[in-house]
Amino acid sequence: MAKVILAYSGGLDTSVCIPWLKENKGLDVIAFSADLGQGEELSPLKEKAVKTGAEKCIILDLRKTFVEEFIWPAVRAGAHYGGYLLATALGRPLIGRELCRIAREEGATAIAHGCTGKGNDQVRLESVAAARAPDLKVIAPLREWEMKTREEEIEYAQKRGIPVPVTKKSPYSLDVNLWGVSIEAGVLEDPMVTPPDDCYQWTTSPEKAPDEPEVVELTFAGGVPVMLNGAHEGDPLALISALNEIAGRHGVGRYDLVEDRTVGIKSREIYEAPAGFVIDMAHKGLEGLTLSKDVRAMQRVLAPRYGELVYNGFWFSDLREALDGFFKSSQARVNGRVKVQLYKGGARVIGRESDQSLYNLALASYGEEDAFDHKAAEGFIKLWTLPLRAEARARGEA
Amino acid sequence: MAKVILAYSGGLDTSVCIPWLKENKGLDVIAFSADLGQGEELSPLKEKAVKTGAEKCIILDLRKTFVEEFIWPAVRAGAHYGGYLLATALGRPLIGRELCRIAREEGATAIAHGCTGKGNDQVRLESVAAARAPDLKVIAPLREWEMKTREEEIEYAQKRGIPVPVTKKSPYSLDVNLWGVSIEAGVLEDPMVTPPDDCYQWTTSPEKAPDEPEVVELTFAGGVPVMLNGAHEGDPLALISALNEIAGRHGVGRYDLVEDRTVGIKSREIYEAPAGFVIDMAHKGLEGLTLSKDVRAMQRVLAPRYGELVYNGFWFSDLREALDGFFKSSQARVNGRVKVQLYKGGARVIGRESDQSLYNLALASYGEEDAFDHKAAEGFIKLWTLPLRAEARARGEA
Amino acid sequence: MAKVILAYSGGLDTSVCIPWLKENKGLDVIAFSADLGQGEELSPLKEKAVKTGAEKCIILDLRKTFVEEFIWPAVRAGAHYGGYLLATALGRPLIGRELCRIAREEGATAIAHGCTGKGNDQVRLESVAAARAPDLKVIAPLREWEMKTREEEIEYAQKRGIPVPVTKKSPYSLDVNLWGVSIEAGVLEDPMVTPPDDCYQWTTSPEKAPDEPEVVELTFAGGVPVMLNGAHEGDPLALISALNEIAGRHGVGRYDLVEDRTVGIKSREIYEAPAGFVIDMAHKGLEGLTLSKDVRAMQRVLAPRYGELVYNGFWFSDLREALDGFFKSSQARVNGRVKVQLYKGGARVIGRESDQSLYNLALASYGEEDAFDHKAAEGFIKLWTLPLRAEARARGEA
Amino acid sequence: MAKVILAYSGGLDTSVCIPWLKENKGLDVIAFSADLGQGEELSPLKEKAVKTGAEKCIILDLRKTFVEEFIWPAVRAGAHYGGYLLATALGRPLIGRELCRIAREEGATAIAHGCTGKGNDQVRLESVAAARAPDLKVIAPLREWEMKTREEEIEYAQKRGIPVPVTKKSPYSLDVNLWGVSIEAGVLEDPMVTPPDDCYQWTTSPEKAPDEPEVVELTFAGGVPVMLNGAHEGDPLALISALNEIAGRHGVGRYDLVEDRTVGIKSREIYEAPAGFVIDMAHKGLEGLTLSKDVRAMQRVLAPRYGELVYNGFWFSDLREALDGFFKSSQARVNGRVKVQLYKGGARVIGRESDQSLYNLALASYGEEDAFDHKAAEGFIKLWTLPLRAEARARGEA
Repeated sequence: MAKVILAYSGGLDTSVCIPWLKENKGLDVIAFSADLGQGEELSPLKEKAVKTGAEKCIILDLRKTFVEEFIWPAVRAGAHYGGYLLATALGRPLIGRELCRIAREEGATAIAHGCTGKGNDQVRLESVAAARAPDLKVIAPLREWEMKTREEEIEYAQKRGIPVPVTKKSPYSLDVNLWGVSIEAGVLEDPMVTPPDDCYQWTTSPEKAPDEPEVVELTFAGGVPVMLNGAHEGDPLALISALNEIAGRHGVGRYDLVEDRTVGIKSREIYEAPAGFVIDMAHKGLEGLTLSKDVRAMQRVLAPRYGELVYNGFWFSDLREALDGFFKSSQARVNGRVKVQLYKGGARVIGRESDQSLYNLALASYGEEDAFDHKAAEGFIKLWTLPLRAEARARGEA
Repeated sequence: MAKVILAYSGGLDTSVCIPWLKENKGLDVIAFSADLGQGEELSPLKEKAVKTGAEKCIILDLRKTFVEEFIWPAVRAGAHYGGYLLATALGRPLIGRELCRIAREEGATAIAHGCTGKGNDQVRLESVAAARAPDLKVIAPLREWEMKTREEEIEYAQKRGIPVPVTKKSPYSLDVNLWGVSIEAGVLEDPMVTPPDDCYQWTTSPEKAPDEPEVVELTFAGGVPVMLNGAHEGDPLALISALNEIAGRHGVGRYDLVEDRTVGIKSREIYEAPAGFVIDMAHKGLEGLTLSKDVRAMQRVLAPRYGELVYNGFWFSDLREALDGFFKSSQARVNGRVKVQLYKGGARVIGRESDQSLYNLALASYGEEDAFDHKAAEGFIKLWTLPLRAEARARGEA
Repeated sequence: MAKVILAYSGGLDTSVCIPWLKENKGLDVIAFSADLGQGEELSPLKEKAVKTGAEKCIILDLRKTFVEEFIWPAVRAGAHYGGYLLATALGRPLIGRELCRIAREEGATAIAHGCTGKGNDQVRLESVAAARAPDLKVIAPLREWEMKTREEEIEYAQKRGIPVPVTKKSPYSLDVNLWGVSIEAGVLEDPMVTPPDDCYQWTTSPEKAPDEPEVVELTFAGGVPVMLNGAHEGDPLALISALNEIAGRHGVGRYDLVEDRTVGIKSREIYEAPAGFVIDMAHKGLEGLTLSKDVRAMQRVLAPRYGELVYNGFWFSDLREALDGFFKSSQARVNGRVKVQLYKGGARVIGRESDQSLYNLALASYGEEDAFDHKAAEGFIKLWTLPLRAEARARGEA
Repeated sequence: MAKVILAYSGGLDTSVCIPWLKENKGLDVIAFSADLGQGEELSPLKEKAVKTGAEKCIILDLRKTFVEEFIWPAVRAGAHYGGYLLATALGRPLIGRELCRIAREEGATAIAHGCTGKGNDQVRLESVAAARAPDLKVIAPLREWEMKTREEEIEYAQKRGIPVPVTKKSPYSLDVNLWGVSIEAGVLEDPMVTPPDDCYQWTTSPEKAPDEPEVVELTFAGGVPVMLNGAHEGDPLALISALNEIAGRHGVGRYDLVEDRTVGIKSREIYEAPAGFVIDMAHKGLEGLTLSKDVRAMQRVLAPRYGELVYNGFWFSDLREALDGFFKSSQARVNGRVKVQLYKGGARVIGRESDQSLYNLALASYGEEDAFDHKAAEGFIKLWTLPLRAEARARGEA
């Protein structure tokens, strides 16, 4: 019998997918779960998947790959989407790549996922398949089947003797990986409603955060963080984990946005990314010191484009690779140390230094060491304003 | 004798300019001071200027014009420069415009200013002259004269019996108008040094800010704020003033940046703009709800360009006017209310609503009212990913 | 019975649509044909449509509206898509707008078109409906019906006694309006095949074009042409028609492109737009003289975005309107005269002048009238290159 | 005595520079001339420079380096400035780099050039020094000395017994290298004047060009041409030279532009670049076939920025290097063959093919092999137009 590789979480939706795929598509199901740092014990899924009818369940710890091949390039690029730095969107191409790889290894003809038809994740996973294994069929049971409510799914599962997850459903829809939490649904669907405190998973409420500010120092090399407070060198997982804890404790890293989904609608999204927030802010602070005005202006154009590509599922595209070509070069210069103060939900850069700083105290200083040629300004301004003079003449003002 | 109009603050530099212009350029000096909300009593300058040797001193309250013709268009455009929303830079074109206008009225042949040769303000003022009165000569005594220190200037003044400002010199160089404070020099010249608390003029230190969060509601029409907590309609000066007070009290609106000056060097700048910070954040929040993805993407390109023009002195340029043509149209849709929470130096949008919202609950909801056609996604994704399939084929992956 | 307004050309596809809509959708069909200068006599369509089963056929001459509300704004914006200036794409929003308007007038509940599922025109027409009459149903019979070949359609028509167009089918697929011809299919589907001469409708083969060059002079006001060789003022239809004839006679205005369709595939397209080609070239020539470097740089970013919106069916969008706000302002300055030489398939600007020229002979001249301050260059270059010096220092080169 | 390296052409200006530098700056002069394919015999300059007072004259053939390190990267990037592809501007950074290198080798403390204060070349040469040898002094005698006319320079030379070039001065100012000719001054300074035929150096007048079209085929690899008509592989100099001859013979490669100089003024420029014109056109034609819509859209933004950097003297900048990072990646895909027809001053792409083509006949064809899923379009358009529906709702149209 032909095989399908199913992106499997052990939750209700993907559990129901297993019998559905067998019954409706006549496929043997191999479940696949990836550890991207979502903080759940995955090993029980092996048994659970098989009990639910899967041939087997493959579990992989992809956390290091996730950081090195997906998160760091996005950090280096300053990628964002409407101001948010993307976490779920960065994990999907990795999951999709593994789905395709496993499909090849197992000789499967299809992959399947438990995404609905109105979200971004279906687009992201299917884009990976299009880019890397365009011959594979992609099956999205939730877009096809007739079940409309959680209750119908439970009934479907119970009829087949499938273990139904007993955890009470959260009032929110959550997606978690080591880089951040995405939170939506429930009362959050009204953009005028203040997010209730119980929707946050990682961050302390600012009002309950410590009464003393805390300063962290991040060291960057090539545009990505390599040390936190002088520690964790060579261990990016530990660095992110430690910073998530510190910044989260201070209530730092919450986002509240109305964003534009790939499928054409706006949605209200709450995100938490304590480490990401601080790293991004520190990164920008260091760029101010180490990148030229021209490079920064260009990055302002390229960074949101990079973010759009990630958001829209175009990680494995020629354009994303070419943008990495740009950033690999431009960010080689972004080395140094940045101090960030965390306090009651806020973070701010309070100092930055670099051996390759473009800041020149002798030129910038108003003190006696001033080395700037003040008289040069006259000639500069004369030519700088020539285009304005031409416009004035054309308007008849001179 | 020919006349020059001098941008006059009553401080040491511009005081010394008066006799210097008379002695070295043979010009009668008319002093000009504008009230842009810098919070100083300007009327004493009339007498002071004359004592210092000026023919007369013209004082104008330009605060309303400043807000309506300069600040609001910049807010509407989301103009920023390296993340800062610009205050000093927005005031210069207005001062420059008045200098030129007065020069015409008084039959002067030149204007003069007290800027040095390494700052941005010389460029901004002289750009206005180039754009609006290109025949006027511009004199910058501080770029020309030999005096290098404050002490030499004081000696120069005392020799001529000119009243020397008795205020003790601040360790910082400040520029203030109703939209913000610019702070530089002194220990701030080392970008790794945390700004000392005494450099801030308007904002409470976050640690000393109230222990209770405060929520403000801003109402926008056409992309600019028209009410604060339902009040101040029709009185933008009162709105800004009240919001500066509230946000400043909560320690909100501090910026710490290394930025790229027009004259080609980097400098470390501290800014305070409590009202501006909150308005800008609320404005972006409302844009998320009311502007399409396409308009927002274009604005991400245009807003920093608008900011660059302001920063570099190109307010009176064809490009700035054309950009306003864009924003007048695109921002007509940005109407609604935004709630912002202020707390211990931080601010965050916690709700936004609009009668012209592009958010559609029926489409976005995960609840039972879901009106989204999930099956349409399959066709959408099929075509959306066709370019990726073509790339895969070209790479030999299919 | 409910009604549908059908975009009707009298060709085989839309003729077959009439009975199909009645039989399969149970709708009364009102045919609509617009004269956009495609050069066909439309009045016979009235009778033909009725014979084919339509309730009636509405015919409108929209040529003037087409030029003034669609072509001129696109010319002003320099809109292009991959280098081509768009003709078919500019006509669709007008046709779509009228379809919606007539649907309202006639109380119809749907509109229909004869586009296939792989082209751009379906997207463009349906986008108009989404933007202006989102409640109307859109029916695309060719995407739905089972017929796959011209022969099946003829058989379908003949069975119902419907008059089948007797014109022999062209080996190419053509779309014509007064602004240009789109040519595709047949041997053109191989991008390496040289377009055979018989595919061109309006332009003489360069080899057969007159042996003498011809110079035309275009006068522009506000970025659009208002006179050709001093004539046709106030009559843009006559201007375009005359220029199509002249330039076409000289073989000018052919395009051969591989372009990216909205639906995600590449296609090879041949276009002819003699008047458009010359107007666009002259327009750019005049912009060089009348627009500042900054405005031109911004237009280089905005013009292709404008073209994309047109191509992708987003004419009736907030972004297109906002871009028009930009161009209305920036192009107010683009007034003057341009000489273009036409010869053997080529065109080139050989002169341009404007009362509002930004070119200043006294500054540009190498002759004795030189008014440029050569010494100012030293100061200018000193500051202009400061960022390069900072980069050199950071690289350790100084 | 300290030494200066002078960029030396053997013409009047740089000949006069030699004694002027000795007399006014007290420097020993080492002349330097580079062969960039300007088509002049340089060896006589050795003796001439020494006769004029130089210590020695260094002559280098840099043509191959010029093509491989400067022209090809610019071709790959599609770099242009206002539509022109840049030739003079590409040569300057190479000359400047060699001036700096020789200065180091010879222990010189300064470099000098014969550019005036209103042109671009001074900026370009001095930018290289700023970027690569910021400690070197740059001397520009023509900006400093009092001589204003050619006659005064001749008199200055004759007084010192310096051989004055006997060639009659051209009515135009020319700059030539293997990639193109720049032509300005004389009657060309009036932008309304048609360039007289005698100003062109390389191209036949279209009217006098052959009566038969000629088709050339260019083979590209990695975005640069590697063969012309199947020949010249591995010999880019021969390829360019042969194509300059062929295209020039057909009158192809003339440009007539009003452009914006770095120093703030507009100037009217005539260029000839027969090979460059054809290569650029063919390159774009091949990109249509081999690059995705997204990559092409990004390149439309980056290519003019690359051109601006080249034009403004920022070759040796972090931004140019980062842009090359982008293009190296994106252009790896641009491989294939392009046919270009040359005829009477015009050129057009008439065919292109690639082993890595993104064009898919099975999807694009209107014939029976059509593999496109027409029904997918319905879902696609439904989601594609959702943002327009939201805008319509907000405008109250639905």
